[in-house]
Amino acid sequence: MERQDKGLAWMLQFDNIAWYEDGKVRILDRRIYPIEVRFVECADHREVAKAIKDMVTQSAGPYVAAAMGMALAAYECRGRSESEQIAYLTDAAYTISHARPTTAKRMEKITEQCLDAAKAALAGGMSDVSLAVKECAVEQNNTRYARIGRTAKHLAGLFPEHGTVMTQCFAETIVGLMLKEARLQGKDVRFFCPETRPYFQGSRLTASVIYDMGFDVTVITDNMPAAVMKNEGVDLFTSAADVICGDGHVVNKVGTYQIAIAAKYHGIPYYVTGAPDQGHPDIGTVKIEMRDPDFVLQAMGTPTANQNVKGYYPAFDITPPELVSGVVTDQGIFSPYDLAEYIADPGDFLV
Amino acid sequence: MERQDKGLAWMLQFDNIAWYEDGKVRILDRRIYPIEVRFVECADHREVAKAIKDMVTQSAGPYVAAAMGMALAAYECRGRSESEQIAYLTDAAYTISHARPTTAKRMEKITEQCLDAAKAALAGGMSDVSLAVKECAVEQNNTRYARIGRTAKHLAGLFPEHGTVMTQCFAETIVGLMLKEARLQGKDVRFFCPETRPYFQGSRLTASVIYDMGFDVTVITDNMPAAVMKNEGVDLFTSAADVICGDGHVVNKVGTYQIAIAAKYHGIPYYVTGAPDQGHPDIGTVKIEMRDPDFVLQAMGTPTANQNVKGYYPAFDITPPELVSGVVTDQGIFSPYDLAEYIADPGDFLV
Repeated sequence: MERQDKGLAWMLQFDNIAWYEDGKVRILDRRIYPIEVRFVECADHREVAKAIKDMVTQSAGPYVAAAMGMALAAYECRGRSESEQIAYLTDAAYTISHARPTTAKRMEKITEQCLDAAKAALAGGMSDVSLAVKECAVEQNNTRYARIGRTAKHLAGLFPEHGTVMTQCFAETIVGLMLKEARLQGKDVRFFCPETRPYFQGSRLTASVIYDMGFDVTVITDNMPAAVMKNEGVDLFTSAADVICGDGHVVNKVGTYQIAIAAKYHGIPYYVTGAPDQGHPDIGTVKIEMRDPDFVLQAMGTPTANQNVKGYYPAFDITPPELVSGVVTDQGIFSPYDLAEYIADPGDFLV
Repeated sequence: MERQDKGLAWMLQFDNIAWYEDGKVRILDRRIYPIEVRFVECADHREVAKAIKDMVTQSAGPYVAAAMGMALAAYECRGRSESEQIAYLTDAAYTISHARPTTAKRMEKITEQCLDAAKAALAGGMSDVSLAVKECAVEQNNTRYARIGRTAKHLAGLFPEHGTVMTQCFAETIVGLMLKEARLQGKDVRFFCPETRPYFQGSRLTASVIYDMGFDVTVITDNMPAAVMKNEGVDLFTSAADVICGDGHVVNKVGTYQIAIAAKYHGIPYYVTGAPDQGHPDIGTVKIEMRDPDFVLQAMGTPTANQNVKGYYPAFDITPPELVSGVVTDQGIFSPYDLAEYIADPGDFLV
């Protein structure tokens, strides 16, 4: 129980993900966690944007970092005139939200809400609105965690009483809350986690959280999901998403598409968790980020190929609705072909 | 041209793969090549068997190593009585051929032929038959290379004039000869190579040979094949096989199955090269080797997961005939459902 609580607390507390205090933002470096626990310290909001771009934090981490980065930006321009601060924060919002292209539209919502909080505080005559923006960041997270908790309840409800679940990549909040719900619902499930190259989020992060939460967990390399489905009786494949479009296309960590194809071939359902995004009515609105191709030519810092060879690194892939069995949201489970209702009324969904 | 010849010579000469001389066998350590060029030196045939088990050499490399290991075994028992040498070599043949379970039946053919060569030489009154066995090893390889050359010609004939080919893992002889044939036939193709975790044979070996042969080559991680098929217009997927069963099932490096599923989903043909195996009339005769599960919890020697997490490591997976577009052999291209003719008359096929 101690191990479980420690793991849960560590991975789910957003003060461990990113936190503004005393003129800086500290971000847990998920590129090396849990091999090492190290924080990247950002002295201004541009460094926060760079940390997001450099994938110091991933999954929902960038949302926390972005909001805390806005608090830092407010600190940077403290004491200036109201209009100067608004101009500075508007610029900072753009810099932070556009650190990575695929999630820019979602990040804009985060930074815009922070900007509104800053404006309201400035209108009240404060000269340093950083703590007001930080309060907005904390509220955003509390709201998101509550919403994801409802989503996790629906997801765990889909698990078999005794069985096997395959995950993909790492999505801290939903993974942690999914496990908490699975425990509450008495589900006796074991997990297979593909390692998720090139950053190994699956082996380093997802598997660690699952182990810490007291479930049976096995790491596989990214070429094994189909073999595991065939040999080990997988009941369900689940992933989060960076974007769920209104037309049912799912944008998530590269590899999701391939596992979804294998799941379909084996007759295994694929459930994606998240919320259909008003900002992305269809897949045509999503720009897939291409990252530094050389990064796939190394593993944990060691070169894996002849130096003359080329790499290729799309951060995400696109899974079409025909491969998606259900979109699990805070409001319940939707068909990927029937997301209009959610999009019309997303409740308190921000990102 | 110099680069091409050097690459071809290096990767295809079996004296660089494994070689018996002066009471020892030297085997190129493919676990680290081309980052480092290092040889494992085996002082007796048991060390050769261990090197095969430890995957010092892979693909067709174990066949060369096994035959050279038989030459070494002959050296070890030199000077003993004829019957003692035969007993010793019979025992050595078993040890070497059973170093890895999935390929044991194929390896037995190699070692049996060496044993026959030894018996013939012993019958002639020689006291040290190691050189006679070595000569048999060289002949086996020459025959195999000629046969694979004919296979490569058929395979390259399937390539588009201008297009994109995806490979899987490393199969040195067929890869090298396929590239030579593609060049001879003037095929303007680029290659995508999945890295092939956990040993990175694709990034380290396949990509290096393709680069050395002067073709455009891009390494991807093992979670990207489906995304590349969708985004980059792959014309053809090809792999070698550790076993092609008479019933059309293909046993090859884990990951092949998953890529074949993705290829089918995208309408891309999958061609496997090799020879249907008389020793394996159906998939029920094949035992899939499970390797040390901890090995998937590291990459190039660096840990990638919490030490309490489990791993899972099937060395191979099984691709059913419905996913195989054609079996490319030295005798031409066969349907996976129609291998009886080849099995009935495999020509000079040994392994």
